Amino acid sequence: MTAEPGLHTPLCDLLGCRYPILQAGMGGVARAELVSAVSDAGGYGFLGMVREQPEVISREIDAVRERTDQPFGANLIPAATDRSLLDEELAVCFEKRVHSMCFFWDVDQNVVMRAKRARCLVLYQVGSVEAAVAAERAGADIIIGQGFEAGGHVRGVVSSLVLLPQLVEAVSIPVVASGGFASGEGLVAALALGAQGIHCGTVFLATEESFAHEFHKRRVVAASSEDTVYTDLFAINWPPESPVRVIRNSITEDKSVKLRGNDPGNLPREMIAEEDGRPIYKFSTDSPLRSTRGNLEALPAFAGQVAGLIASVPKAADLIAEMAQSAARALDRLKAIRTV
Amino acid sequence: MTAEPGLHTPLCDLLGCRYPILQAGMGGVARAELVSAVSDAGGYGFLGMVREQPEVISREIDAVRERTDQPFGANLIPAATDRSLLDEELAVCFEKRVHSMCFFWDVDQNVVMRAKRARCLVLYQVGSVEAAVAAERAGADIIIGQGFEAGGHVRGVVSSLVLLPQLVEAVSIPVVASGGFASGEGLVAALALGAQGIHCGTVFLATEESFAHEFHKRRVVAASSEDTVYTDLFAINWPPESPVRVIRNSITEDKSVKLRGNDPGNLPREMIAEEDGRPIYKFSTDSPLRSTRGNLEALPAFAGQVAGLIASVPKAADLIAEMAQSAARALDRLKAIRTV
Repeated sequence: MTAEPGLHTPLCDLLGCRYPILQAGMGGVARAELVSAVSDAGGYGFLGMVREQPEVISREIDAVRERTDQPFGANLIPAATDRSLLDEELAVCFEKRVHSMCFFWDVDQNVVMRAKRARCLVLYQVGSVEAAVAAERAGADIIIGQGFEAGGHVRGVVSSLVLLPQLVEAVSIPVVASGGFASGEGLVAALALGAQGIHCGTVFLATEESFAHEFHKRRVVAASSEDTVYTDLFAINWPPESPVRVIRNSITEDKSVKLRGNDPGNLPREMIAEEDGRPIYKFSTDSPLRSTRGNLEALPAFAGQVAGLIASVPKAADLIAEMAQSAARALDRLKAIRTV
Repeated sequence: MTAEPGLHTPLCDLLGCRYPILQAGMGGVARAELVSAVSDAGGYGFLGMVREQPEVISREIDAVRERTDQPFGANLIPAATDRSLLDEELAVCFEKRVHSMCFFWDVDQNVVMRAKRARCLVLYQVGSVEAAVAAERAGADIIIGQGFEAGGHVRGVVSSLVLLPQLVEAVSIPVVASGGFASGEGLVAALALGAQGIHCGTVFLATEESFAHEFHKRRVVAASSEDTVYTDLFAINWPPESPVRVIRNSITEDKSVKLRGNDPGNLPREMIAEEDGRPIYKFSTDSPLRSTRGNLEALPAFAGQVAGLIASVPKAADLIAEMAQSAARALDRLKAIRTV
């Protein structure tokens, strides 16, 4: 119990957080600094650990725990990770007794089963009713439903407004809304549609604590909703037919490329940046991080359509407090509506 | 005042309706039978009169008034109508003292001014913040904000969830939500985002009273959200670059066509159906009506992504009552959320 303004759904009890506001586990961007700030402020953070080495995962988990005693999870992408690395990643998460795992893209029954055996909560992010049903059947505890307006990798084609009620109807476990959410008003809209909380990427990318490069944060702040592009041009490192939403840049505006139907295997390998000594190629899925050097403009600036709602780069705690307050105000506004 | 379950917003006072539920003025589909049923049941109907002859408009207005004394409006599309016909259409609407005009596509200052001079309420449906500001400046009384998930002609590229709060912020007149709405839960989500009501096409197309062909209604009931396609293939009768959302059919699935970038002027003229003695060509924007004969499958079956939420073809009054009740239940559910 707390005297601060809160907004309590059963999901909060399940995750052990004060607000039903989840921070998406963005690869590279969501490291200990962001995750600890989010969980400590009453949200629920996920370390974005896709294709990270086990030592990095171990270090980041420890670093979150040094900063907060609140629960948090780790995000992995089975479909985009070599099986042997995935095994090592899972092993370190389980060994460190991570509170939850969030998986995305294809529903992988095997990883769900392993996480459940390790007594982890399992959240599965999906983009369709069919995948939600498969994830529940595989043993997931919570479905994250991602709408087409989302940033980063986009799994489905249906907008959140339309997808969410279908997911809520189709599964019996809690559904969290993702894609199109960056505000307290959006949280209340999600609750109206039957979701129990929201899962936000873009708005947390544009916080002080995120590990995104300042250039990427500034692009999110400057972008309108219409500035985002749905494309599979940024394809290297992921399976074919893995579209993303990014802010338009010199690559998406190049008239010699096609926005859809690219095969990662056929895209030329041209090094245009480097990150911690690792080469980054044109058309790769690596977004510009604090530690990236090179042609940042040509890298994917992942962002959802909510970029048009984002006007500053706050501290994560201030963002969460503002979201909780605006949600409470929106609820008060709805409570005043005469229904008889 | 009424003892029936209601859901009152200031928009209801402005429009003189019981529920903030507007039925979109779908061309061909929204005739007197549907409009009178909607307005009589407490919603607000629009006659879909795009490119209709003045005699038809006059007849339909009279027919609504024979069936109900509740207010309703007429929908015209200035950008898709020859100027001389548009002048005649406006003249008959004003002469008949239609309660409101709903316009769509490009913001046409001149028609707004004329409608205001005729003491009509003006609603303008837009797909972007820029167009909403232009419509308010032109004198519109109400903005209808259309999200990308909408059926029929789709003006913008931003989802309703993301577009609506931006419109509410940008204009000082009421905003109504369109695209992705077919339920009471959706109505409450729209209210949470700051809209004052919803404007629904697809769900009213699939009612007994709509003039859509039974074939079209059955396609809406059978379709999943993923079955809708965003394309400008159905282009004849409208300006170039006028994309629509339809249910996939033999035309959209034909591998020899391209879904985007078609020019109406370059599409071949092949008659594939007829409607009231008028030829209907392949690639035209005419959807199958009760009175259409020919290759119905090849005509555009307009539908929004909400098609995936629609499972039956009810009477319009039953649909509105169900939407009002589910909205009241959703509000009650939100009222129970602990906010401190």
